[in-house]
Amino acid sequence: MSLHDDMVQMADRAVAASRALARLTTRKKNAILEAMADELESRRDAIKDANARDMEAGEQAGLTGSLLDRLKLSDARIDSMIKGLRDIVVLKDPVGQEISRWMRPNGLEITKIRVPIGVIAIIYESRPNVTADAASLCFKTSNAVILRGGKEAVHSNRVLADALQEGGQKKGLPENSIQLVSTTDRDAIRELVQMVGKVDLAIPRGGEGLINAVIEHARVPVIKHYKGVCHVYVDETADIDTAVAISVNAKCQRPGVCNAIETLLVHQAIAGTFLPKLVEQLKPYKVELRGDEAARAVIPEMKSATEDDWYAEYLDLILSVRVVKDVHAAVEHINRYGSHHSDSIVAGGDHAQKIFTQEVDSSTVYVNASTRFTDGGEFGMGAEIGISTDKLHARGPMGLEELTTYKYVVHGAGQIRE
Amino acid sequence: MSLHDDMVQMADRAVAASRALARLTTRKKNAILEAMADELESRRDAIKDANARDMEAGEQAGLTGSLLDRLKLSDARIDSMIKGLRDIVVLKDPVGQEISRWMRPNGLEITKIRVPIGVIAIIYESRPNVTADAASLCFKTSNAVILRGGKEAVHSNRVLADALQEGGQKKGLPENSIQLVSTTDRDAIRELVQMVGKVDLAIPRGGEGLINAVIEHARVPVIKHYKGVCHVYVDETADIDTAVAISVNAKCQRPGVCNAIETLLVHQAIAGTFLPKLVEQLKPYKVELRGDEAARAVIPEMKSATEDDWYAEYLDLILSVRVVKDVHAAVEHINRYGSHHSDSIVAGGDHAQKIFTQEVDSSTVYVNASTRFTDGGEFGMGAEIGISTDKLHARGPMGLEELTTYKYVVHGAGQIRE
Repeated sequence: MSLHDDMVQMADRAVAASRALARLTTRKKNAILEAMADELESRRDAIKDANARDMEAGEQAGLTGSLLDRLKLSDARIDSMIKGLRDIVVLKDPVGQEISRWMRPNGLEITKIRVPIGVIAIIYESRPNVTADAASLCFKTSNAVILRGGKEAVHSNRVLADALQEGGQKKGLPENSIQLVSTTDRDAIRELVQMVGKVDLAIPRGGEGLINAVIEHARVPVIKHYKGVCHVYVDETADIDTAVAISVNAKCQRPGVCNAIETLLVHQAIAGTFLPKLVEQLKPYKVELRGDEAARAVIPEMKSATEDDWYAEYLDLILSVRVVKDVHAAVEHINRYGSHHSDSIVAGGDHAQKIFTQEVDSSTVYVNASTRFTDGGEFGMGAEIGISTDKLHARGPMGLEELTTYKYVVHGAGQIRE
Repeated sequence: MSLHDDMVQMADRAVAASRALARLTTRKKNAILEAMADELESRRDAIKDANARDMEAGEQAGLTGSLLDRLKLSDARIDSMIKGLRDIVVLKDPVGQEISRWMRPNGLEITKIRVPIGVIAIIYESRPNVTADAASLCFKTSNAVILRGGKEAVHSNRVLADALQEGGQKKGLPENSIQLVSTTDRDAIRELVQMVGKVDLAIPRGGEGLINAVIEHARVPVIKHYKGVCHVYVDETADIDTAVAISVNAKCQRPGVCNAIETLLVHQAIAGTFLPKLVEQLKPYKVELRGDEAARAVIPEMKSATEDDWYAEYLDLILSVRVVKDVHAAVEHINRYGSHHSDSIVAGGDHAQKIFTQEVDSSTVYVNASTRFTDGGEFGMGAEIGISTDKLHARGPMGLEELTTYKYVVHGAGQIRE
């Protein structure tokens, strides 16, 4: 059978599963989630064996240490996966929730109700824990899921997906609710994202290469978990100590994640007092600074920033620094070079805060807080499937609600249109 | 300059306009809408002249009568366009609306706020009144719009777009808020829908050919105003007179629109009594009936329906009829052959109603009412830019709210992440 036919059949099975999933009660879904967690527990050894095979293949293929680390399923990570499943049990089920209801003058009663999206394709890279996270969040919202993980984690993902599906089936999970694409053929991704009418949404999670490959081929809607070129802007009205603490936290607390900052913008009137204090506090972290001319006039030992630096997502202990004329210039810089993810202003006065929050075109805009809080857990959503840098449907942290859509149910008593 | 460069520059101008638009108050936007309406009034003769040129070219090109009718801008239609603009003034502005607000244990206050989408491309066919409708709805929601109308209406659209932009500018409309693509080169559509990072959303409105061309090339998010293969299902518990009235209304009141039905499904237990009464009431409308074997056993003079009939959007006085075993079979038929637009059940009992509303995967599901109510006006939205048959972002009638997205604004007092 061709890859195309294979994928069409997989999608058809997912559509059938999605119909059955839409009929499950929350109570039943929660019992199934518990059964999935139990099954992971009872297959712990098999999971570790499969992961050892992936690790061995990865070492032979010469994967870097950080890639191998992401691939590794230690007991602690398996524990955390299992805990993740049980945590989702207690989250509120958005499916069936009434969003609004109103009556029309002709007596029609319109109810807007949250419903599952249908079939969701998740396309991701090396971390095998995404298999459990994504499958459980899609399931809790009654969506069928097709998983396409990275080829490095192929054995781990297979054991995990089978455990989830088979464990869930013991408590009534519909067949094919959780499917994993077996082939590591890259064309499978293209097939998946072109399945109009069968796949309702594709969510790519990974590096720029993966995301761009998905966008290029997609015919189905895509929500991207894209890069984070995030900023802190320090206004002339900022409290200096607050500004330093926020900047250091946003850069250094975990530099390899999307909501860490890459560029610091500082108002010209405060640069001379702020930058030296910042530099001092950054020293223990050995952050490499790259500044524009005005920043280098204050801190001459900074490297010179190039135009490329403003676009760069370092994901590392590097920070570009630019002195700006005012809040308007800061907004312009962020909208031009940023990735519409998370940006923060540190300012004392209402005026600059208001301009910044209104005009910065990003999913999350902070006033006097670190950008590192852009996260489903930190937002109180309980779990997240990603952080959308898109504007449509879901923006910012995507929790359970963002994995649903709505339909209108209209009750009448024989109304016809005149 | 190449078409590509041309379109990039147009999109850049739209992005700049979108920033300025985001700063306008509702009061100012309403004054601008009034000025647009006044300008259309004062350029009425120029609009009619331009339209006469389009009509003449259309006649020479041998356009059909119905296409010419859609192209025509009579005084009544210009009146209605002007009234449309003034009607939008009184609609509530969703921009800036607080969707929700909550406090986190660490003191961060998260506000979810409605904001404009940014730059919207509207790609449509012959009706020039879409120019005014789409431009004004996008403007009221502070979005910049790039209009790409059909080549038949090129002169009318130019005069209309200029009047709206120039009239609005008198009251402070930012430059390039409303731009019309001048070239009739089809490649302009491709350029437009591939402008990732500049065009935030494309809305195609038109026939299947246009929609498919947009989906095939799009890299930016698309919300489709697609076809309507709608159904009425008459359950065994239906009140016969109600079922007949709804079926006749849904088919005949305006057969050429997307929310008219194409297929009637009837429960086997009631087909024998229902179908003869339906046929009698359809007689005055001269509806052609195409039935399956079971339907033809009741009404032998029906033509035989083929598999293609179940997929067909006739947009005409043709109705396919199928006898089904029960509500489950009706749901299965609709989910398989329908276009996820609008479907109605006529039933007395709760049981079938509940199965139908829960399991039919359509934007709008009716109980005991005609499908013809799927419409922004009928829903009380005041205006609509289309009816989405997609599931993401907007589903069903799209009013002003659906032309917005949201952002999170987070206020802190120096919070950093531990």
